[in-house]
Amino acid sequence: MSDRRRFIARASGVAAAAAAAAISDAPSVIAQPKVQWRMSTAWPSSLDVMQGSAEKLAKVVEEMSGGRFRIEVYPGGQIMPPFACFDAASKGTIEAFMAIPYYWPAKEAALEWFATVPFGMNAEGMAAWYHQGDGLKLWEEAYAAFNLVPRPAFASAPNMAGWFRKKIGTIADYKGLKMRIGTGLGGKVYARAGGASVLTPGAEVYAALERGVIDAAEWVGPYDDMKLGLHNTAHYYYYPGWHEPGSTNEFGFNKKAYDALPVDLRRTLDHAAAAVQVYGRTDFHTKNAIALERLKTQFKGKVEILPLPGPVLRELKKLAAEVIWEESEKTPMAKKVHASFTKFQALVGPWDHVAEGAYHQLVAL
Amino acid sequence: MSDRRRFIARASGVAAAAAAAAISDAPSVIAQPKVQWRMSTAWPSSLDVMQGSAEKLAKVVEEMSGGRFRIEVYPGGQIMPPFACFDAASKGTIEAFMAIPYYWPAKEAALEWFATVPFGMNAEGMAAWYHQGDGLKLWEEAYAAFNLVPRPAFASAPNMAGWFRKKIGTIADYKGLKMRIGTGLGGKVYARAGGASVLTPGAEVYAALERGVIDAAEWVGPYDDMKLGLHNTAHYYYYPGWHEPGSTNEFGFNKKAYDALPVDLRRTLDHAAAAVQVYGRTDFHTKNAIALERLKTQFKGKVEILPLPGPVLRELKKLAAEVIWEESEKTPMAKKVHASFTKFQALVGPWDHVAEGAYHQLVAL
Repeated sequence: MSDRRRFIARASGVAAAAAAAAISDAPSVIAQPKVQWRMSTAWPSSLDVMQGSAEKLAKVVEEMSGGRFRIEVYPGGQIMPPFACFDAASKGTIEAFMAIPYYWPAKEAALEWFATVPFGMNAEGMAAWYHQGDGLKLWEEAYAAFNLVPRPAFASAPNMAGWFRKKIGTIADYKGLKMRIGTGLGGKVYARAGGASVLTPGAEVYAALERGVIDAAEWVGPYDDMKLGLHNTAHYYYYPGWHEPGSTNEFGFNKKAYDALPVDLRRTLDHAAAAVQVYGRTDFHTKNAIALERLKTQFKGKVEILPLPGPVLRELKKLAAEVIWEESEKTPMAKKVHASFTKFQALVGPWDHVAEGAYHQLVAL
Repeated sequence: MSDRRRFIARASGVAAAAAAAAISDAPSVIAQPKVQWRMSTAWPSSLDVMQGSAEKLAKVVEEMSGGRFRIEVYPGGQIMPPFACFDAASKGTIEAFMAIPYYWPAKEAALEWFATVPFGMNAEGMAAWYHQGDGLKLWEEAYAAFNLVPRPAFASAPNMAGWFRKKIGTIADYKGLKMRIGTGLGGKVYARAGGASVLTPGAEVYAALERGVIDAAEWVGPYDDMKLGLHNTAHYYYYPGWHEPGSTNEFGFNKKAYDALPVDLRRTLDHAAAAVQVYGRTDFHTKNAIALERLKTQFKGKVEILPLPGPVLRELKKLAAEVIWEESEKTPMAKKVHASFTKFQALVGPWDHVAEGAYHQLVAL
């Protein structure tokens, strides 16, 4: 083959490869958006794991639908106040929201169980309850009353127990302590232990702790807590987050809008939410690991990371059982959801103990 | 309104609703399959969690693509022997396979790390390494040499340590013990402890144990082990599965076929694999929980479920470190993957200990 022929062969090979790439990079469907949704979240955009997973859902849906289904995602406060998103999606002002079900117990006591229960299941157990047990079915039943379709988003759990200015030795140390605590059930347990539970908005937690308006605060975990600057104002950082062992965020869709989707886009949305469980949880896991390492090295001496004493946790567990039972008696739905949750935890707990529990002892050897 | 007019209004309402339902149930794209793939797995169809998750991937992809992308899934042995699937997908005889990377260390020593490492990361850590660390990037690099694109499938971990006919008191009890063990690294550790590691095919494990050809066997966990009938032939069921703490199954795609997909179907396949991580793992979690409960109740007295003694695990951990280091020196890729894995475990381990580790102590209180 002459040099010239070789060159032509090579060049046409390049052209053919480029053409093939152009074909394969084009979606097989024309990218005319047929569906355009709006989602408002309960988070500020600074919470990049939470807000990021809402944006990830939109990205995944757009990629898989070849641009036929687009969701515009707004952080809380941009098109409506953070906590207005549930009602807005319920009424159809927007098609979707992202939050966490323990923000809405005033609407239905049962909703707390879909987020997390003190001393309840971890993220693994929650996911199994949703996808293999009755969890999602019951949640759909509860949200149907609000014209909403729920889907579990990623789990931001387990949390830390929180930041304290004084050491906790016994359960009596909670007496009179003013603590910022997010969840309804956790807050009630805390109040029963003698503390005063305060729901300070995220943006004000640092100042409240610094000025002594509160004595302690829980937010999420190392990564998000450091964003609020909590490590600069309290010395003791306690674990485990007994009040939020399995916190599962939520995507909520207006039922009419969801039902009106063509079936392939409905399934795209469902499975995208499942994929985001993986992306969000691994993001959370990795960023918390990096933040914890920073706390241990860069803030050595300034911050002490320590477990709550066993006897304190045992007391809290007793109080939690009382609170949970009382709350479960508030509505027929809460009673039903509590029964399902408790039964499922009794089923998966022993296996989780043998499998993951033993793993954690193993690596600590 | 007359009764007749009322009837017509009602009837046309019904018709309109039915028409709307018909529209919304139809995918927004005509269901002409444009892409048809074949996948062969390394599992018999009786392993319904493993084989089921391959079938689930096909279902999810078909649903989301409105039928444009179909994957026919075959169990091992139907269109080719179970372990032929890797080479077949590599050569393009089929487009996809499902297996677990520790089946292929003869091809490249590094591949063991993508499945699991004795005393290594759990499923949570593996997923974070893949999606947030270098794990998937390195795996793609390693598989490019075989014309394959890997995607993590669900994690069947942690496993149990296995079924034994005699009690294990000290590391010396492993001496001369013939044990069926699946993983390469785990088998080498076991051999270094003085045991004889045998790779009995799944279907023959029961008979081998019953006839005394082997003295012990590990397979997966309660659900799959009971399918093999192992609880009927060995009394001691040990945990934790130190040899397989984070076993991650794999989907492998022929690279040419993958690259030739339109970009929306490529992303559909990627995100479907992530969704299947959730569906498969929750299926595994729930079925193992049910099986463990059965073992404890229906087989009470016949089967004893117990942890390996701490000193035995400590000895195994030392031997594992030697074996893993030696294997990591075998190829440049293994060296690189081992370094990345080890660094990532050192990062996420302490956070996992504080978060999940403490949770497991909490629920055991």
